[in-house]
Amino acid sequence: MELGKYRLYSEMARGEKKAELVFKGARVFMAHTGEFVDGDVAIADGIVLGVGHYSGRREIDLTGKYLCPGFIDSHLHLESTLVTPGELIRQAALCGTTTFIVDPHESANVSGSEGIDYILKQTENVPANVYVMMPSCVPATDVDDNGCTLTAGKMKSYLDQPRILGLGEVMDAVSVVNGSVSMHEKLALFENRVRDGHAPFLEPGDLAAYALAGISTDHECVDYDYAMEECRNGMYVLIREGSAARNLDAIVGGIVSRHTDTSFFCFCTDDKHIEEIRREGHINYNIKRAVQLGLPVEKALKMATIQAARCYGLSRLGAIAPGYQADFTVLDNLKDLNVLEVYHKGRKILAESHGNIPPCPPDLKQTVHLDHFSQEQLILPHAGGKAHVLQMIGGQIVTEDLREEVPFQKTEKGNVFIPEGGYLKIAAVERHKNTGKTGVGIVKGFGIKGGAIASSVSHDSHNLIVIGDNDRDMYLAVRELIRTQGGYTLVENGKVYETLPLPIMGLMSDAGYETVNKVLKKMIAKAYEMGIPKDFDPFITLSFMALPVVPEIRITPRGVYLVKEERLLKTPFEQ
Amino acid sequence: MELGKYRLYSEMARGEKKAELVFKGARVFMAHTGEFVDGDVAIADGIVLGVGHYSGRREIDLTGKYLCPGFIDSHLHLESTLVTPGELIRQAALCGTTTFIVDPHESANVSGSEGIDYILKQTENVPANVYVMMPSCVPATDVDDNGCTLTAGKMKSYLDQPRILGLGEVMDAVSVVNGSVSMHEKLALFENRVRDGHAPFLEPGDLAAYALAGISTDHECVDYDYAMEECRNGMYVLIREGSAARNLDAIVGGIVSRHTDTSFFCFCTDDKHIEEIRREGHINYNIKRAVQLGLPVEKALKMATIQAARCYGLSRLGAIAPGYQADFTVLDNLKDLNVLEVYHKGRKILAESHGNIPPCPPDLKQTVHLDHFSQEQLILPHAGGKAHVLQMIGGQIVTEDLREEVPFQKTEKGNVFIPEGGYLKIAAVERHKNTGKTGVGIVKGFGIKGGAIASSVSHDSHNLIVIGDNDRDMYLAVRELIRTQGGYTLVENGKVYETLPLPIMGLMSDAGYETVNKVLKKMIAKAYEMGIPKDFDPFITLSFMALPVVPEIRITPRGVYLVKEERLLKTPFEQ
Repeated sequence: MELGKYRLYSEMARGEKKAELVFKGARVFMAHTGEFVDGDVAIADGIVLGVGHYSGRREIDLTGKYLCPGFIDSHLHLESTLVTPGELIRQAALCGTTTFIVDPHESANVSGSEGIDYILKQTENVPANVYVMMPSCVPATDVDDNGCTLTAGKMKSYLDQPRILGLGEVMDAVSVVNGSVSMHEKLALFENRVRDGHAPFLEPGDLAAYALAGISTDHECVDYDYAMEECRNGMYVLIREGSAARNLDAIVGGIVSRHTDTSFFCFCTDDKHIEEIRREGHINYNIKRAVQLGLPVEKALKMATIQAARCYGLSRLGAIAPGYQADFTVLDNLKDLNVLEVYHKGRKILAESHGNIPPCPPDLKQTVHLDHFSQEQLILPHAGGKAHVLQMIGGQIVTEDLREEVPFQKTEKGNVFIPEGGYLKIAAVERHKNTGKTGVGIVKGFGIKGGAIASSVSHDSHNLIVIGDNDRDMYLAVRELIRTQGGYTLVENGKVYETLPLPIMGLMSDAGYETVNKVLKKMIAKAYEMGIPKDFDPFITLSFMALPVVPEIRITPRGVYLVKEERLLKTPFEQ
Repeated sequence: MELGKYRLYSEMARGEKKAELVFKGARVFMAHTGEFVDGDVAIADGIVLGVGHYSGRREIDLTGKYLCPGFIDSHLHLESTLVTPGELIRQAALCGTTTFIVDPHESANVSGSEGIDYILKQTENVPANVYVMMPSCVPATDVDDNGCTLTAGKMKSYLDQPRILGLGEVMDAVSVVNGSVSMHEKLALFENRVRDGHAPFLEPGDLAAYALAGISTDHECVDYDYAMEECRNGMYVLIREGSAARNLDAIVGGIVSRHTDTSFFCFCTDDKHIEEIRREGHINYNIKRAVQLGLPVEKALKMATIQAARCYGLSRLGAIAPGYQADFTVLDNLKDLNVLEVYHKGRKILAESHGNIPPCPPDLKQTVHLDHFSQEQLILPHAGGKAHVLQMIGGQIVTEDLREEVPFQKTEKGNVFIPEGGYLKIAAVERHKNTGKTGVGIVKGFGIKGGAIASSVSHDSHNLIVIGDNDRDMYLAVRELIRTQGGYTLVENGKVYETLPLPIMGLMSDAGYETVNKVLKKMIAKAYEMGIPKDFDPFITLSFMALPVVPEIRITPRGVYLVKEERLLKTPFEQ
């Protein structure tokens, strides 16, 4: 702080001069001591000067209300919410989240540095603090066919950007523990910064080796015991409550029943649709749910504020104390925990507030490169014997690798698998470089009847992914996404029912969240109607079925992938 | 970590290769989760590889014992223990302290950069981690006559040294909150590092302004309520239990009775004599005492380990987890908390282990520059009326400013104060630059009879300080300290009873702790015998009576100083 400013603010802090702005009479959450105290909060230039007895040139009466530091989402992908970054931030900020630790992993997988630059530019002038973790696994693995490769060399130019905090979730645990040169070049580049993890259910020795590489967070744990194992290994546990993966009940339930020390726990959403943010909330929902489960509200608030700030070295965020940025969330009471107002740098965030956000570069709106695609590419010859079947699980992104006899049909070209009796067809179609690669597999548990569902959002390579009970509708779905240059689509009985175009890298809409929500609601209702079980979020669950780093079995444009065995099968009938 | 090494250690962490060294079968304190778990700890090259089931090429059986991270003293002055830095570290390390956050404030006040370099060099090859905070207040205030001035300009050359962590305790709160240029130059120099505080009982507004300047720790709070105030202002509270200042009972007592969140509390000793370290312990004593007061042992251990490490940004210290430095303290049980063994970087610290410590440069052993000193300089003319009397308080370094009628005697030169009826004489004699400045005052509560006690350790300027009930013995005491070039001395009835020479900057002995302890024990016993109350540590309490930053009244070579009023009086009779 410039000395002239400090002198003025010091006078205000000491009450010798009226502060610029004072929030009067709230119960203020003191993050360092984990308690509420009654007091006025003095502000100048977006910075807290002190908490005590103050009067200001401008005053905001908060009598009877609860003033908390703005919440921090310690890990999320902006792209997953389908709207532009500015849209998402605005909606989540209205829920009380004022700091976002963002991994632009999806954009980087489609468009490389240009994708990262897009996220940085779009979040420059939003009413929130947006920090970026450099995507570490682009592509996620060697079996991926994505749009770009991000090497340590390419990352170097980002090191000096003040909003680049560290290395994004390191998903390729195998490369880490085996000491792969290219992976360790990236880890070394961020040696003195935070390196985020992605480590679902590593064996104890592997987890130790993974932590030894310097990785200090994880948001992938789905149960209490594993969360504790990670924490014992020195990692912050970022408790995730998103659209597809909901881990909060399991982890917080364990914390409550065992009176666990929560110093190294934070909250994140990872991937959450804007429609759910609007309906349920953002990090405020993590807090509310944790409190409902019996976690003391003070502990939940610390997870959402100062602990996340400390985890990421953000020394001036996450508390209401002198020198901290004036990011506040006003709550009605400690039971309902409704967010009444939100402030960023002392300024109220308004529902209609838009920053000055630049348009998307045209190149990033033409990213589905799939000049030739025929229905024949979807045929799956039945080789006889048992097939690897991808069992989908409600509310989870993990899958089970079943080996089962599956139905088939004789054709002139030989026996082919037919989607019947609960078995469906799934396909991943490469869309970045016109390679024509198409992998076809068999899934169970997704239930769609008389049509197909497809998406160009398909972690992490974002090829096209489609599930259906007949080839014609699956083919139509792929054609539709070529036409719209990305999106979500539902095809029923030979007709496109509805499409949500996502032209920005095939990941995001530029239509605004109202349109996105409206279309999505309609499509989701239809998807359930077509037989998809209600414990799935149809499009989000679909979007994880090609991710070759989450157990046990996935579909990729090169074929079926067995995650634990690290084995690619050209057809599900390969043993 | 170099990749070849990582690959090898990863194999060891995963149990594919035997680890270099394994600590078997201990109950291991997991700092991140605040719990004990049974496990083996695998080590290589002084680094923890993992906690779990391991076998090693070398194994140390710790069955039935408790393995904790090495303890951290979050704030201390090495000089105050009277022995050379290496001696102190060795003794404290044997008590389980493996990391020392050191402020070489005393050395800097006597010898400037040379004094700091001395501390850095002496702690280069010790069996512990020694980090240095750059002394911020040299001299402590404008009313001080010390040996050197340390400006921001002079500090710059230290910024790149990896063991310089931040700015040392900022004692001059007035300069901070008033925005003094020279003070804020120093604060700005360490903007992105830790800036330690020293803020006994600031008013709420002043404390806010002080924290606003970026100061984030304090070790001066003596009670629970103020500790909480500091913590609410975003400051870590370093709970001090030293030789002179013992604040632990008051603060931890409050914590226990109110179930306070202790995330932002740590432990320190500040100033502790080696004799007491040997008898009572070091940070292990803080832990033991806190547990006796009812603090859960896990919370006490976190204060002594990971919380202190996080406070100072030491990301690889304070826990037993992969990648952390293998600094361990082995305890017998959780009740007695006796330290059985201590390890630094996986190596056992032995009682006889001396590092390769260079000798003290000759210049630093000739620092008492006082060529002319006469007994007349000690005469205190009695001006009539009430005098400011410095009331000393047992177990505290704060004093009270009494205004009382004091005894006097008629002489040919007029009325002079005579030390009688509980009133004693105190004098501070400038010793760095032969200025001849001598301040004389009146104290109460110290009780010495028939003699004088003197010291060249006298915070923070380290001029000579002497208290006695007659001028002759006080004069003899000063002469003795000129002869020995610094030290502690006791004079009784015209004869030097005993002197502990402290020739290194007038602060430290080079005789080894056994000699220091033996002589000190004898002198302290004698001091009590001469009437000093047993709730004082005679020499340490004496050494704080010239410190013009601790309320309420002090003696300096320029006269009596009223701390709160910031007013220097030529004589205690000035109103």
